[in-house]
Amino acid sequence: MNRRIVLARRPSGMPEADSFRMVQMDVPVPGPNEFLVRHRFLSLDPYMRMRMSEAESYAPPQGLGQVMVGATAGVVAESRHPQFSEGDHVVGLGGWQEFNLVKASEAAGYRKVDVTRVPLSAYLGPLGVPGLTAWYGLVKIIDPAPGETVVVSAAAGAVGSIVGQLAAARGCRVVGIAGGPEKCRHVVENLGFDACVDYKVPPSSQSLADQLSVACPQGIDGNFENVGGTVFDVVLRQLNLFSRVALCGLISGYNGGASPIANPDLLLARRVRLEGFIVSDHFDLLPLAQEELRQLMLDQRLKWRETVAHGLENAPSAFVNMLAGGNIGKQLVALD
Amino acid sequence: MNRRIVLARRPSGMPEADSFRMVQMDVPVPGPNEFLVRHRFLSLDPYMRMRMSEAESYAPPQGLGQVMVGATAGVVAESRHPQFSEGDHVVGLGGWQEFNLVKASEAAGYRKVDVTRVPLSAYLGPLGVPGLTAWYGLVKIIDPAPGETVVVSAAAGAVGSIVGQLAAARGCRVVGIAGGPEKCRHVVENLGFDACVDYKVPPSSQSLADQLSVACPQGIDGNFENVGGTVFDVVLRQLNLFSRVALCGLISGYNGGASPIANPDLLLARRVRLEGFIVSDHFDLLPLAQEELRQLMLDQRLKWRETVAHGLENAPSAFVNMLAGGNIGKQLVALD
Repeated sequence: MNRRIVLARRPSGMPEADSFRMVQMDVPVPGPNEFLVRHRFLSLDPYMRMRMSEAESYAPPQGLGQVMVGATAGVVAESRHPQFSEGDHVVGLGGWQEFNLVKASEAAGYRKVDVTRVPLSAYLGPLGVPGLTAWYGLVKIIDPAPGETVVVSAAAGAVGSIVGQLAAARGCRVVGIAGGPEKCRHVVENLGFDACVDYKVPPSSQSLADQLSVACPQGIDGNFENVGGTVFDVVLRQLNLFSRVALCGLISGYNGGASPIANPDLLLARRVRLEGFIVSDHFDLLPLAQEELRQLMLDQRLKWRETVAHGLENAPSAFVNMLAGGNIGKQLVALD
Repeated sequence: MNRRIVLARRPSGMPEADSFRMVQMDVPVPGPNEFLVRHRFLSLDPYMRMRMSEAESYAPPQGLGQVMVGATAGVVAESRHPQFSEGDHVVGLGGWQEFNLVKASEAAGYRKVDVTRVPLSAYLGPLGVPGLTAWYGLVKIIDPAPGETVVVSAAAGAVGSIVGQLAAARGCRVVGIAGGPEKCRHVVENLGFDACVDYKVPPSSQSLADQLSVACPQGIDGNFENVGGTVFDVVLRQLNLFSRVALCGLISGYNGGASPIANPDLLLARRVRLEGFIVSDHFDLLPLAQEELRQLMLDQRLKWRETVAHGLENAPSAFVNMLAGGNIGKQLVALD
């Protein structure tokens, strides 16, 4: 059987168990020019929360009763498509299910990947959409010079952790913002950021603003923004003249709270260039991004971490846990 | 005597009569390499309100007891500087006073201007800082393609009126936002904008959002923002994908009210590039901007209007009137 998870109800606030429903169907059989993928990994990503709502976002809402959308990595189990063979490792948008039948019209959305030197799951991380997201925002929007200071929020996450390492490779001072001492330690000790400040400020600690200004003695030249809300407001106050903000996500608002920018006058006073971007507009740059990221990986200069849940039935709880900040690095579901 | 107006007290909210004080001194006599300018026009500009506060802005605060800073146009009355002669028309930052003694170290901030084909006051308007401001934001940030829709707030003002005409010259659909029917009529009938919507929505009228969406049936590709606050929020909701915002001013907040951006998620969803800019960073481009603006003027394709107060003693009330939106076009004080 092919087990699948569909959107049962649109949540208000944090999704709950009854937001999802598990359904089953027979494993489909490929017709002419179709192929069947057995999923090995599902990617869980914050943007999915937005798509669960009907509110406008950059992608159409996830349909009710439809399989939850998402990136997947797997192995071709059966193929009648000339370009895909049984045993090929592939990445595509297979959704939250154990198998996906790829129709002829959908095959262009699938890529075969080489797992001889890197693990399959890396194609849902540094060599996949999170990697391209990090690369585009840092390289094409922030474009930092050596010696500049780059601040990344959600620094322990799949995207943030790569942003910081790409910036470090460019000779920048790299400062993360993350939630809690464990993540902050990981960001500095494992990922090699120069500093990481904890937005869940412990009671005895300095304010986030004070922590950040200690970590950024020369101010902030580039900000890769994943969070928004009060965290972004604190960063904004410490931006330098002619700084750049790559606006990648506003996860603080994904569960329905607004995340206004309190002081847009600072965008003017500091001559800030702020650019919102969506990685799917830039898939043509994936080979270019992969080239740099793969080389850094092979040189042991790019570390990444995964938080892996096991079994399709655990995808909803892993997703909620990720939205609450419970993961470190890329959140995956392994289907063993 | 040289009469001068100094900042007497920092206002909270709208400046009042006691924010300013008139003082007198003898007319100074130029020493070696100095020259004396008799002011003919003072420029009054919204940014001056910001400088009256101690709050951070892009320029240091105006000093208490110091002559109010500002651009001026005048005639050299006496000179011991080799590059300036009696009778030269000059533009500089002479401040709110009848004469200004330009020291040797300050001469580089003065430009001689040619009044054979355009009036002197134009150098405080389309051929001066407002013209460069309009040109930079439109050409260098928004960079609109023919057929795109450009929306300009404070459209009847010194900058906004030029932005719209520059955009029209590029084949754009140009929509202004202004306060009240008189300004809106002026913007359409005299300046040639395609439409102008009234943010002071008359009770019987459609909402600002509805007016704007009627005026911009294809959405908004470029926004030259002078106002901020709720007006900007309405514009933001109608921005197209990949639109550009030139953030030039936030006059709605200059008297101390905050003007937060309520929905920054739209900056992301619409992939907006928003760039704050300050014209003084770009004075090197003045000749390039002037070239286009002068040609449009000589071709009768650039209209501009002035609201002129007479006499130095009327500068404070003219300034307050301008902050309240009482002017149309460039606000000047003529010193006859």
